[in-house]
Amino acid sequence: MTTARVTPPRRGRPGYDLESLLAVAVKVFNERGYEATSMEDLSRRLGITKSAIYHHISGKDELLRLAVDRALDGLFEAADEASAMDGRAIDKLEHLMRRSVRVLVARLPFVTLLLRVRGNTKVERQALARRRAFDHLVSELVQRAQDEGDVRPDVDPAVASRLLFGLVNSLTEWYRPRGGMSADALADTVCKIAFDGLRQDRPA
Amino acid sequence: MTTARVTPPRRGRPGYDLESLLAVAVKVFNERGYEATSMEDLSRRLGITKSAIYHHISGKDELLRLAVDRALDGLFEAADEASAMDGRAIDKLEHLMRRSVRVLVARLPFVTLLLRVRGNTKVERQALARRRAFDHLVSELVQRAQDEGDVRPDVDPAVASRLLFGLVNSLTEWYRPRGGMSADALADTVCKIAFDGLRQDRPA
Repeated sequence: MTTARVTPPRRGRPGYDLESLLAVAVKVFNERGYEATSMEDLSRRLGITKSAIYHHISGKDELLRLAVDRALDGLFEAADEASAMDGRAIDKLEHLMRRSVRVLVARLPFVTLLLRVRGNTKVERQALARRRAFDHLVSELVQRAQDEGDVRPDVDPAVASRLLFGLVNSLTEWYRPRGGMSADALADTVCKIAFDGLRQDRPA
Repeated sequence: MTTARVTPPRRGRPGYDLESLLAVAVKVFNERGYEATSMEDLSRRLGITKSAIYHHISGKDELLRLAVDRALDGLFEAADEASAMDGRAIDKLEHLMRRSVRVLVARLPFVTLLLRVRGNTKVERQALARRRAFDHLVSELVQRAQDEGDVRPDVDPAVASRLLFGLVNSLTEWYRPRGGMSADALADTVCKIAFDGLRQDRPA
Protein backbone atom coordinates (compact mmCIF):
# COMPACT_ATOMS: atom_id res chain seq x y z
CA MET A 1 0.00 0.00 0.00
CA THR A 2 1.38 3.37 -1.00
CA THR A 3 0.41 5.92 1.59
CA ALA A 4 3.19 8.45 1.08
CA ARG A 5 2.32 12.06 0.30
CA VAL A 6 -1.36 11.85 1.20
CA THR A 7 -3.31 15.00 0.40
CA PRO A 8 -5.67 15.66 3.31
CA PRO A 9 -9.30 15.75 2.12
CA ARG A 10 -10.81 19.21 2.02
CA ARG A 11 -14.46 20.17 2.06
CA GLY A 12 -16.08 19.45 -1.33
CA ARG A 13 -12.71 18.48 -2.80
CA PRO A 14 -11.65 14.89 -2.92
CA GLY A 15 -8.19 14.09 -1.54
CA TYR A 16 -6.02 11.61 -3.35
CA ASP A 17 -3.05 9.55 -2.42
CA LEU A 18 -0.87 8.22 -5.22
CA GLU A 19 -2.83 4.97 -5.33
CA SER A 20 -6.28 6.49 -5.78
CA LEU A 21 -4.94 9.10 -8.20
CA LEU A 22 -3.40 6.32 -10.28
CA ALA A 23 -6.66 4.34 -10.25
CA VAL A 24 -8.63 7.29 -11.67
CA ALA A 25 -5.93 8.13 -14.23
CA VAL A 26 -5.85 4.53 -15.52
CA LYS A 27 -9.65 4.53 -15.81
CA VAL A 28 -9.51 7.72 -17.92
CA PHE A 29 -6.61 6.38 -20.06
CA ASN A 30 -8.61 3.20 -20.75
CA GLU A 31 -11.74 5.17 -21.66
CA ARG A 32 -10.21 7.89 -23.83
CA GLY A 33 -6.85 6.47 -24.81
CA TYR A 34 -3.53 7.44 -23.20
CA GLU A 35 -2.43 9.75 -25.99
CA ALA A 36 -5.79 11.51 -26.24
CA THR A 37 -5.81 12.26 -22.49
CA SER A 38 -4.24 15.55 -21.36
CA MET A 39 -3.22 16.56 -17.81
CA GLU A 40 -6.09 19.04 -18.17
CA ASP A 41 -8.52 16.11 -18.68
CA LEU A 42 -7.11 14.35 -15.63
CA SER A 43 -7.36 17.50 -13.53
CA ARG A 44 -11.02 17.92 -14.55
CA ARG A 45 -11.87 14.30 -13.83
CA LEU A 46 -10.07 14.27 -10.49
CA GLY A 47 -11.55 17.60 -9.47
CA ILE A 48 -8.13 18.89 -8.37
CA THR A 49 -5.70 21.31 -9.99
CA LYS A 50 -2.85 20.23 -12.21
CA SER A 51 -0.36 21.41 -9.60
CA ALA A 52 -2.08 19.15 -7.04
CA ILE A 53 -1.49 16.26 -9.47
CA TYR A 54 2.17 17.27 -9.92
CA HIS A 55 2.48 17.05 -6.14
CA HIS A 56 2.24 13.25 -6.60
CA ILE A 57 3.88 12.58 -9.95
CA SER A 58 6.19 14.22 -12.47
CA GLY A 59 3.75 13.90 -15.38
CA LYS A 60 1.50 11.77 -17.52
CA ASP A 61 4.27 9.38 -18.46
CA GLU A 62 5.07 8.63 -14.82
CA LEU A 63 1.42 7.65 -14.35
CA LEU A 64 1.69 5.36 -17.36
CA ARG A 65 4.93 3.82 -16.09
CA LEU A 66 3.47 3.15 -12.63
CA ALA A 67 0.37 1.62 -14.21
CA VAL A 68 2.01 -0.69 -16.71
CA ASP A 69 4.66 -1.76 -14.18
CA ARG A 70 1.82 -2.80 -11.87
CA ALA A 71 0.71 -5.23 -14.60
CA LEU A 72 4.19 -6.29 -15.70
CA ASP A 73 5.52 -6.82 -12.16
CA GLY A 74 2.59 -9.19 -11.52
CA LEU A 75 3.31 -11.16 -14.66
CA PHE A 76 7.04 -11.42 -13.91
CA GLU A 77 6.36 -12.54 -10.33
CA ALA A 78 4.19 -15.29 -11.84
CA ALA A 79 7.01 -16.21 -14.24
CA ASP A 80 9.58 -16.29 -11.40
CA GLU A 81 7.27 -18.55 -9.41
CA ALA A 82 6.88 -20.87 -12.40
CA SER A 83 10.62 -21.13 -13.05
CA ALA A 84 11.30 -21.83 -9.36
CA MET A 85 9.01 -24.89 -9.54
CA ASP A 86 10.43 -28.39 -9.75
CA GLY A 87 9.20 -30.65 -12.46
CA ARG A 88 8.16 -30.60 -16.07
CA ALA A 89 7.94 -27.53 -18.28
CA ILE A 90 4.27 -28.21 -19.11
CA ASP A 91 3.37 -27.92 -15.42
CA LYS A 92 5.31 -24.66 -15.11
CA LEU A 93 3.53 -23.38 -18.21
CA GLU A 94 0.12 -24.28 -16.81
CA HIS A 95 1.03 -22.67 -13.47
CA LEU A 96 2.15 -19.52 -15.30
CA MET A 97 -1.10 -19.28 -17.28
CA ARG A 98 -3.20 -19.86 -14.20
CA ARG A 99 -1.30 -17.19 -12.26
CA SER A 100 -1.47 -14.79 -15.21
CA VAL A 101 -5.26 -15.08 -15.28
CA ARG A 102 -5.28 -14.22 -11.59
CA VAL A 103 -2.99 -11.20 -12.17
CA LEU A 104 -5.30 -10.06 -14.95
CA VAL A 105 -8.38 -10.36 -12.74
CA ALA A 106 -6.74 -8.64 -9.76
CA ARG A 107 -5.16 -5.83 -11.84
CA LEU A 108 -7.64 -5.64 -14.74
CA PRO A 109 -7.40 -1.89 -15.51
CA PHE A 110 -3.58 -2.02 -15.41
CA VAL A 111 -3.37 -5.06 -17.70
CA THR A 112 -5.96 -3.54 -20.07
CA LEU A 113 -3.84 -0.39 -20.34
CA LEU A 114 -0.64 -2.43 -20.85
CA LEU A 115 -2.19 -4.33 -23.76
CA ARG A 116 -3.02 -1.04 -25.53
CA VAL A 117 0.48 0.43 -25.29
CA ARG A 118 1.82 0.98 -28.79
CA GLY A 119 5.31 2.38 -28.24
CA ASN A 120 5.39 6.07 -29.09
CA THR A 121 7.26 7.26 -25.98
CA LYS A 122 10.20 6.00 -23.93
CA VAL A 123 7.90 4.64 -21.20
CA GLU A 124 5.81 2.83 -23.82
CA ARG A 125 8.89 1.38 -25.53
CA GLN A 126 10.17 0.12 -22.15
CA ALA A 127 6.79 -1.51 -21.47
CA LEU A 128 6.84 -3.18 -24.89
CA ALA A 129 10.38 -4.44 -24.24
CA ARG A 130 9.25 -6.01 -20.94
CA ARG A 131 6.24 -7.56 -22.69
CA ARG A 132 8.53 -9.06 -25.32
CA ALA A 133 10.80 -10.47 -22.58
CA PHE A 134 7.75 -12.07 -20.95
CA ASP A 135 6.55 -13.52 -24.28
CA HIS A 136 10.04 -14.92 -24.78
CA LEU A 137 9.89 -16.72 -21.40
CA VAL A 138 6.53 -18.24 -22.35
CA SER A 139 7.78 -19.30 -25.75
CA GLU A 140 10.84 -20.98 -24.16
CA LEU A 141 8.59 -22.89 -21.75
CA VAL A 142 6.41 -24.14 -24.63
CA GLN A 143 9.55 -25.18 -26.52
CA ARG A 144 10.92 -27.08 -23.51
CA ALA A 145 7.55 -28.75 -22.88
CA GLN A 146 7.52 -29.83 -26.50
CA ASP A 147 11.10 -31.16 -26.20
CA GLU A 148 9.98 -33.12 -23.14
CA GLY A 149 7.16 -34.67 -25.20
CA ASP A 150 4.33 -32.99 -23.30
CA VAL A 151 3.24 -30.52 -25.99
CA ARG A 152 1.88 -31.80 -29.29
CA PRO A 153 4.68 -31.87 -31.86
CA ASP A 154 2.57 -30.43 -34.70
CA VAL A 155 2.44 -26.82 -33.47
CA ASP A 156 5.09 -24.12 -33.66
CA PRO A 157 6.10 -23.16 -30.08
CA ALA A 158 6.26 -19.44 -30.88
CA VAL A 159 2.79 -19.47 -32.45
CA ALA A 160 1.39 -21.64 -29.66
CA SER A 161 2.71 -19.29 -26.97
CA ARG A 162 1.16 -16.29 -28.73
CA LEU A 163 -2.17 -18.14 -28.89
CA LEU A 164 -2.01 -19.14 -25.20
CA PHE A 165 -1.51 -15.55 -24.11
CA GLY A 166 -3.92 -14.30 -26.77
CA LEU A 167 -6.48 -16.42 -24.96
CA VAL A 168 -5.53 -15.00 -21.55
CA ASN A 169 -5.34 -11.40 -22.78
CA SER A 170 -8.69 -11.63 -24.58
CA LEU A 171 -10.28 -11.78 -21.12
CA THR A 172 -9.75 -8.00 -20.81
CA GLU A 173 -12.34 -7.60 -23.60
CA TRP A 174 -15.26 -9.06 -21.66
CA TYR A 175 -14.41 -10.26 -18.15
CA ARG A 176 -15.67 -8.05 -15.32
CA PRO A 177 -14.84 -9.22 -11.76
CA ARG A 178 -18.10 -7.89 -10.32
CA GLY A 179 -20.77 -10.54 -10.79
CA GLY A 180 -18.53 -12.64 -13.02
CA MET A 181 -16.81 -15.97 -12.41
CA SER A 182 -14.14 -16.12 -9.73
CA ALA A 183 -10.54 -15.78 -10.87
CA ASP A 184 -9.89 -19.45 -10.02
CA ALA A 185 -12.91 -20.73 -11.96
CA LEU A 186 -11.90 -18.58 -14.91
CA ALA A 187 -8.29 -19.82 -14.77
CA ASP A 188 -9.60 -23.42 -14.66
CA THR A 189 -11.71 -22.94 -17.78
CA VAL A 190 -8.89 -21.21 -19.65
CA CYS A 191 -6.44 -24.00 -18.79
CA LYS A 192 -8.91 -26.81 -19.60
CA ILE A 193 -9.45 -25.40 -23.09
CA ALA A 194 -5.81 -24.43 -23.70
CA PHE A 195 -4.26 -27.70 -22.52
CA ASP A 196 -6.92 -30.36 -23.05
CA GLY A 197 -9.25 -28.74 -25.58
CA LEU A 198 -12.96 -28.14 -25.73
CA ARG A 199 -13.72 -31.50 -27.33
CA GLN A 200 -15.04 -34.36 -25.24
CA ASP A 201 -13.79 -37.56 -26.80
CA ARG A 202 -16.65 -39.90 -27.59
CA PRO A 203 -16.24 -43.49 -26.40
CA ALA A 204 -15.03 -45.59 -29.33
CA MET B 1 -15.28 -4.95 -56.75
CA THR B 2 -16.70 -1.47 -56.35
CA THR B 3 -15.75 0.57 -59.36
CA ALA B 4 -18.52 3.16 -59.26
CA ARG B 5 -17.62 6.84 -59.02
CA VAL B 6 -13.96 6.53 -59.98
CA THR B 7 -12.02 9.77 -59.73
CA PRO B 8 -9.76 9.96 -62.78
CA PRO B 9 -6.10 10.26 -61.70
CA ARG B 10 -4.65 13.73 -62.14
CA ARG B 11 -1.03 14.78 -62.43
CA GLY B 12 0.67 14.57 -59.01
CA ARG B 13 -2.65 13.75 -57.35
CA PRO B 14 -3.63 10.20 -56.64
CA GLY B 15 -7.08 9.15 -57.81
CA TYR B 16 -9.19 6.96 -55.57
CA ASP B 17 -12.12 4.73 -56.12
CA LEU B 18 -14.28 3.90 -53.11
CA GLU B 19 -12.30 0.73 -52.45
CA SER B 20 -8.86 2.35 -52.28
CA LEU B 21 -10.21 5.33 -50.34
CA LEU B 22 -11.73 2.94 -47.79
CA ALA B 23 -8.45 1.02 -47.49
CA VAL B 24 -6.52 4.20 -46.62
CA ALA B 25 -9.22 5.44 -44.23
CA VAL B 26 -9.26 2.13 -42.32
CA LYS B 27 -5.48 2.22 -42.05
CA VAL B 28 -5.65 5.73 -40.54
CA PHE B 29 -8.51 4.75 -38.18
CA ASN B 30 -6.49 1.76 -36.95
CA GLU B 31 -3.38 3.89 -36.41
CA ARG B 32 -4.93 6.93 -34.75
CA GLY B 33 -8.29 5.68 -33.52
CA TYR B 34 -11.60 6.32 -35.29
CA GLU B 35 -12.71 9.08 -32.94
CA ALA B 36 -9.38 10.89 -33.00
CA THR B 37 -9.37 10.97 -36.83
CA SER B 38 -10.99 13.97 -38.52
CA MET B 39 -12.03 14.34 -42.17
CA GLU B 40 -9.19 16.88 -42.29
CA ASP B 41 -6.72 14.13 -41.27
CA LEU B 42 -8.11 11.82 -43.96
CA SER B 43 -7.90 14.57 -46.57
CA ARG B 44 -4.23 15.21 -45.68
CA ARG B 45 -3.33 11.50 -45.73
CA LEU B 46 -5.16 10.87 -49.01
CA GLY B 47 -3.71 13.99 -50.62
CA ILE B 48 -7.14 15.03 -51.89
CA THR B 49 -9.59 17.70 -50.74
CA LYS B 50 -12.43 16.99 -48.34
CA SER B 51 -14.94 17.67 -51.12
CA ALA B 52 -13.20 15.02 -53.24
CA ILE B 53 -13.75 12.59 -50.34
CA TYR B 54 -17.41 13.63 -50.06
CA HIS B 55 -17.72 12.76 -53.75
CA HIS B 56 -17.43 9.10 -52.62
CA ILE B 57 -19.06 9.00 -49.21
CA SER B 58 -21.40 11.03 -47.02
CA GLY B 59 -18.96 11.25 -44.09
CA LYS B 60 -16.69 9.55 -41.62
CA ASP B 61 -19.43 7.32 -40.26
CA GLU B 62 -20.23 5.94 -43.71
CA LEU B 63 -16.56 4.92 -44.01
CA LEU B 64 -16.80 3.18 -40.64
CA ARG B 65 -20.03 1.43 -41.62
CA LEU B 66 -18.58 0.17 -44.91
CA ALA B 67 -15.45 -1.04 -43.10
CA VAL B 68 -17.07 -2.89 -40.20
CA ASP B 69 -19.71 -4.41 -42.51
CA ARG B 70 -16.88 -5.82 -44.60
CA ALA B 71 -15.73 -7.72 -41.49
CA LEU B 72 -19.22 -8.60 -40.21
CA ASP B 73 -20.54 -9.76 -43.61
CA GLY B 74 -17.59 -12.16 -43.82
CA LEU B 75 -18.28 -13.56 -40.36
CA PHE B 76 -22.02 -13.99 -41.05
CA GLU B 77 -21.32 -15.71 -44.39
CA ALA B 78 -19.14 -18.13 -42.41
CA ALA B 79 -21.94 -18.64 -39.88
CA ASP B 80 -24.52 -19.26 -42.66
CA GLU B 81 -22.18 -21.79 -44.22
CA ALA B 82 -21.76 -23.55 -40.87
CA SER B 83 -25.50 -23.73 -40.17
CA ALA B 84 -26.17 -25.08 -43.67
CA MET B 85 -23.84 -28.04 -42.96
CA ASP B 86 -25.25 -31.46 -42.14
CA GLY B 87 -24.00 -33.20 -39.07
CA ARG B 88 -22.94 -32.50 -35.54
CA ALA B 89 -22.75 -29.08 -33.90
CA ILE B 90 -19.07 -29.57 -32.97
CA ASP B 91 -18.18 -29.93 -36.65
CA LYS B 92 -20.16 -26.80 -37.52
CA LEU B 93 -18.38 -24.97 -34.71
CA GLU B 94 -14.97 -26.06 -35.92
CA HIS B 95 -15.89 -25.07 -39.48
CA LEU B 96 -17.04 -21.67 -38.25
CA MET B 97 -13.79 -21.05 -36.34
CA ARG B 98 -11.69 -22.13 -39.28
CA ARG B 99 -13.61 -19.87 -41.68
CA SER B 100 -13.47 -16.99 -39.18
CA VAL B 101 -9.67 -17.22 -39.07
CA ARG B 102 -9.67 -17.02 -42.86
CA VAL B 103 -11.99 -13.98 -42.81
CA LEU B 104 -9.69 -12.34 -40.27
CA VAL B 105 -6.60 -13.00 -42.40
CA ALA B 106 -8.26 -11.85 -45.65
CA ARG B 107 -9.85 -8.74 -44.10
CA LEU B 108 -7.38 -8.01 -41.30
CA PRO B 109 -7.66 -4.18 -41.20
CA PHE B 110 -11.48 -4.35 -41.26
CA VAL B 111 -11.66 -6.96 -38.47
CA THR B 112 -9.09 -5.01 -36.42
CA LEU B 113 -11.24 -1.89 -36.70
CA LEU B 114 -14.41 -3.82 -35.83
CA LEU B 115 -12.85 -5.16 -32.63
CA ARG B 116 -12.05 -1.62 -31.48
CA VAL B 117 -15.56 -0.26 -31.97
CA ARG B 118 -16.91 0.92 -28.62
CA GLY B 119 -20.42 2.14 -29.42
CA ASN B 120 -20.53 5.94 -29.23
CA THR B 121 -22.40 6.53 -32.50
CA LYS B 122 -25.34 4.89 -34.28
CA VAL B 123 -23.02 3.09 -36.73
CA GLU B 124 -20.92 1.81 -33.82
CA ARG B 125 -23.98 0.64 -31.89
CA GLN B 126 -25.24 -1.20 -34.99
CA ALA B 127 -21.86 -2.89 -35.38
CA LEU B 128 -21.89 -3.94 -31.71
CA ALA B 129 -25.43 -5.33 -32.13
CA ARG B 130 -24.28 -7.44 -35.11
CA ARG B 131 -21.25 -8.64 -33.09
CA ARG B 132 -23.55 -9.67 -30.25
CA ALA B 133 -25.79 -11.55 -32.70
CA PHE B 134 -22.73 -13.39 -34.01
CA ASP B 135 -21.52 -14.22 -30.48
CA HIS B 136 -24.98 -15.55 -29.74
CA LEU B 137 -24.81 -17.91 -32.74
CA VAL B 138 -21.44 -19.20 -31.53
CA SER B 139 -22.69 -19.66 -27.99
CA GLU B 140 -25.72 -21.62 -29.26
CA LEU B 141 -23.46 -23.90 -31.30
CA VAL B 142 -21.27 -24.60 -28.25
CA GLN B 143 -24.40 -25.33 -26.19
CA ARG B 144 -25.74 -27.74 -28.82
CA ALA B 145 -22.37 -29.47 -29.16
CA GLN B 146 -22.33 -29.89 -25.39
CA ASP B 147 -25.89 -31.29 -25.45
CA GLU B 148 -24.74 -33.75 -28.11
CA GLY B 149 -21.93 -34.87 -25.82
CA ASP B 150 -19.09 -33.52 -28.00
CA VAL B 151 -18.03 -30.60 -25.79
CA ARG B 152 -16.66 -31.27 -22.33
CA PRO B 153 -19.46 -30.93 -19.78
CA ASP B 154 -17.38 -28.99 -17.24
CA VAL B 155 -17.26 -25.64 -19.07
CA ASP B 156 -19.95 -22.99 -19.36
CA PRO B 157 -20.96 -22.69 -23.06
CA ALA B 158 -21.16 -18.87 -22.93
CA VAL B 159 -17.69 -18.59 -21.38
CA ALA B 160 -16.27 -21.21 -23.74
CA SER B 161 -17.63 -19.38 -26.79
CA ARG B 162 -16.08 -16.11 -25.61
CA LEU B 163 -12.75 -17.87 -25.13
CA LEU B 164 -12.88 -19.51 -28.58
CA PHE B 165 -13.42 -16.18 -30.28
CA GLY B 166 -11.03 -14.44 -27.91
CA LEU B 167 -8.44 -16.83 -29.31
CA VAL B 168 -9.40 -16.03 -32.92
CA ASN B 169 -9.64 -12.27 -32.34
CA SER B 170 -6.28 -12.15 -30.54
CA LEU B 171 -4.69 -12.89 -33.91
CA THR B 172 -5.26 -9.24 -34.87
CA GLU B 173 -2.67 -8.32 -32.22
CA TRP B 174 0.26 -10.07 -33.89
CA TYR B 175 -0.58 -11.87 -37.10
CA ARG B 176 0.65 -10.19 -40.29
CA PRO B 177 -0.16 -11.99 -43.58
CA ARG B 178 3.06 -10.90 -45.25
CA GLY B 179 5.78 -13.39 -44.34
CA GLY B 180 3.54 -15.07 -41.76
CA MET B 181 1.88 -18.49 -41.76
CA SER B 182 -0.80 -19.16 -44.36
CA ALA B 183 -4.40 -18.66 -43.28
CA ASP B 184 -5.00 -22.41 -43.48
CA ALA B 185 -1.97 -23.29 -41.34
CA LEU B 186 -3.01 -20.66 -38.81
CA ALA B 187 -6.61 -21.96 -38.73
CA ASP B 188 -5.26 -25.50 -38.21
CA THR B 189 -3.15 -24.46 -35.22
CA VAL B 190 -5.99 -22.45 -33.67
CA CYS B 191 -8.42 -25.38 -34.03
CA LYS B 192 -5.91 -27.95 -32.74
CA ILE B 193 -5.39 -25.96 -29.56
CA ALA B 194 -9.04 -24.94 -29.11
CA PHE B 195 -10.56 -28.38 -29.71
CA ASP B 196 -7.86 -30.86 -28.71
CA GLY B 197 -5.58 -28.80 -26.51
CA LEU B 198 -1.86 -28.16 -26.47
CA ARG B 199 -1.06 -31.17 -24.30
CA GLN B 200 0.28 -34.33 -25.85
CA ASP B 201 -0.94 -37.22 -23.74
CA ARG B 202 1.92 -39.35 -22.49
CA PRO B 203 1.54 -43.08 -23.03
CA ALA B 204 0.33 -44.67 -19.78
